[in-house]
Amino acid sequence: MLKIGICGYGTVGQSFIEHLRVHSDKIKSNISEEYEISLIADRSIDKKEHDKDIAVTKDAMEMALNPAIDIIIELMGGIDIPYKLITSAIKNKKHVVTANKALIAEHGDEIFQLAEKYNVYFGFEASVAGAIPIIQTLTNNMSNENITSVTGIINGTCNYILDQMSSNSLEFSDALNEAKKLGYAEADPTFDINGMDAAHKISILASLIYKVKSPLKNTHIEGIENITTMDIEFSRELGYSIKHVGITSKVNNLIQCRVHPVLVHKDNILSQVLGVMNALLVTGDKFGTSMLYGNGAGGDATASAVVANLVEAINFSCNRDMRNKSIFKNSGSHSYDVMKNDDIISPFYLRIYALDISGVMAEITNILAKEDISIEAVTQHEPTDSDSPIPIVMITNNVSGSSINKSINKIELLAHVEGKVHAIRVLKTDDK
Amino acid sequence: MLKIGICGYGTVGQSFIEHLRVHSDKIKSNISEEYEISLIADRSIDKKEHDKDIAVTKDAMEMALNPAIDIIIELMGGIDIPYKLITSAIKNKKHVVTANKALIAEHGDEIFQLAEKYNVYFGFEASVAGAIPIIQTLTNNMSNENITSVTGIINGTCNYILDQMSSNSLEFSDALNEAKKLGYAEADPTFDINGMDAAHKISILASLIYKVKSPLKNTHIEGIENITTMDIEFSRELGYSIKHVGITSKVNNLIQCRVHPVLVHKDNILSQVLGVMNALLVTGDKFGTSMLYGNGAGGDATASAVVANLVEAINFSCNRDMRNKSIFKNSGSHSYDVMKNDDIISPFYLRIYALDISGVMAEITNILAKEDISIEAVTQHEPTDSDSPIPIVMITNNVSGSSINKSINKIELLAHVEGKVHAIRVLKTDDK
Repeated sequence: MLKIGICGYGTVGQSFIEHLRVHSDKIKSNISEEYEISLIADRSIDKKEHDKDIAVTKDAMEMALNPAIDIIIELMGGIDIPYKLITSAIKNKKHVVTANKALIAEHGDEIFQLAEKYNVYFGFEASVAGAIPIIQTLTNNMSNENITSVTGIINGTCNYILDQMSSNSLEFSDALNEAKKLGYAEADPTFDINGMDAAHKISILASLIYKVKSPLKNTHIEGIENITTMDIEFSRELGYSIKHVGITSKVNNLIQCRVHPVLVHKDNILSQVLGVMNALLVTGDKFGTSMLYGNGAGGDATASAVVANLVEAINFSCNRDMRNKSIFKNSGSHSYDVMKNDDIISPFYLRIYALDISGVMAEITNILAKEDISIEAVTQHEPTDSDSPIPIVMITNNVSGSSINKSINKIELLAHVEGKVHAIRVLKTDDK
Repeated sequence: MLKIGICGYGTVGQSFIEHLRVHSDKIKSNISEEYEISLIADRSIDKKEHDKDIAVTKDAMEMALNPAIDIIIELMGGIDIPYKLITSAIKNKKHVVTANKALIAEHGDEIFQLAEKYNVYFGFEASVAGAIPIIQTLTNNMSNENITSVTGIINGTCNYILDQMSSNSLEFSDALNEAKKLGYAEADPTFDINGMDAAHKISILASLIYKVKSPLKNTHIEGIENITTMDIEFSRELGYSIKHVGITSKVNNLIQCRVHPVLVHKDNILSQVLGVMNALLVTGDKFGTSMLYGNGAGGDATASAVVANLVEAINFSCNRDMRNKSIFKNSGSHSYDVMKNDDIISPFYLRIYALDISGVMAEITNILAKEDISIEAVTQHEPTDSDSPIPIVMITNNVSGSSINKSINKIELLAHVEGKVHAIRVLKTDDK
């Protein structure tokens, strides 16, 4: 009888217990050993409803040292305490399942090595894109060839806000308030909006796929704070929607790992990922392009991924499924460089405010031409009055970040151009 | 050293060998036992290029009895010979991987039981939706809860033809010729076009998920032969595209298993599955809605799924991954009824040819009203001349197949209605 301990008894923890209760028959048909929930650790467990047959504690660290516990389910959040908990648990030969993306992005390198050294199961399916089985798929069916790139809509809050700005013409702040009201954004949504949450997730995938140390510190991170309803409308006119994505790819030992808004063409299936949904487009050199789509958050969806890991952990502990070992073999061993944003080539969307005076367009295109930048599409509306600046929007050919920045600096100096030029990368098909 | 035999050395077989060659390092990192390709069986192997170090035979059955072979990769196609080959191989304790959907739809019940009885690995990932890891996902991450439904675009030929009819306004026959020219349709595309291929695939999924005997014989099967460019254009006007799907779902012991064209709303991500791509929308009672998307055919993509199964087979044979056993436990054991098409409720798209005479619309709506059918949307174009019948297109509320058929029979009898009424189901969100 395997004894399971749960650390953190919030929404996911409660959904997890409920899932085990409702679907115990299905779960049992996938394992060959009995299990039970033996202990729940939660700081405020005395204020929460729980099954009185399960022992409780307020001290998570008690779990890590408790010799009766075989498998720990960490659902606390935060970094410091889970780090201590999980590393001690592994050293005490306990199997661990976690949904904690920040922890793995920061300390995954060490935890992966510990899991291998102490021969325990370590599952983190729920840490990236909730219910989407991306870890399972990347480490199994997709692990027998080169993964050339992953492009993911991996922050539901950002996707919901951009989708609302697009479909209901809301301004950013109104869409954010709407997201908070519906529980799609946290009270403090900073890490969602500024891209840090997506950066954690894409770093985890990069280190997993490419067997490199977490590239989090070298990840280019932009959020969605600067996207305006106007950008969304102009993009739509040109056949694109704006999505916030994480991208990782590898050519030789040069890795891309970046998080920022992109224009996605309407024929690209990622453009159809609406609301809070998540999706990951993965390209392999043999299977071609695949996409996994689903709920990236929510108690039941996240708990579903945790349950899948628990089943793996149980099967690992009784030698029925030892695949987890392969994940950590050579983890972090490949040396690599992270490609600088300046060197990354893509088309760009540019929005320029200029006075409606003849010659301005020529000045702008001359500056671009000097950097070998050509214009693939342009849109400009009639001015409401001749004294106000009007937005000129264009999409360029494939150019490097440094070329576009040089040009932007020059364009911003033009007498008839006002304010900052707004640049957003366009997702290339072969750059997914 | 595990010895592998390949039966059928066509496009997929050749891609498979190439995949093993190019990515041997990646594959080795996922297994703990050595392997080699020992034998290739192919009727016309003397006319094909192959590695001279690998033994060859023209007789596939030799493989099943050869005591030196541990794992058989069946890529022949057809039903009778593969059936004999695979059942003898399993009885000789050989592990088997196949891409043969027709075989499994017809004989899966028996093969699944044999695999369990003889304790061998049986993999068939490539049989449904090529490179999309649908079998792996349904039997692992998604197997710990109730799968309420699967709706899949699982025939690339149909999807390509419908997409071409839509995006390039081609007529069915021209789109089919285009598909043949590009290798997306076979010389005899009957089983793709008439829905039989999709029926094989959805039957396999139904029997896998619901642990029932293959429902192929009770599957309602419609192809795309009757879809016209006009239907596609009218659907678009109403906000839909037309897709050919397989659907399976289960409520209590009542199963739906059907294959036919549907109207998919433009906000449903399935509507964005273009060209030859495949996709499966899966709903679980806990993870909610997920979708897997990718290449459903092609040598490299199919071989990629076969390689993934080979890795599982190797890990099974050395007791490193015994999950395959769970798939066949209780397979075919659940009793069930297949819901009749007459009883299945959905909105319907109706196209009616009628003379542009006042009162016709009233006659039609009266007939529908008598069956409690209301009209949710309607579109009718100006007639080019008053003597020709004009198409009236409408979308109904949720009604049963029998109600719609009764109404259609009456409408077709109206004096000013010409020819047959064309009805297509509309995909409901909660009917996925």
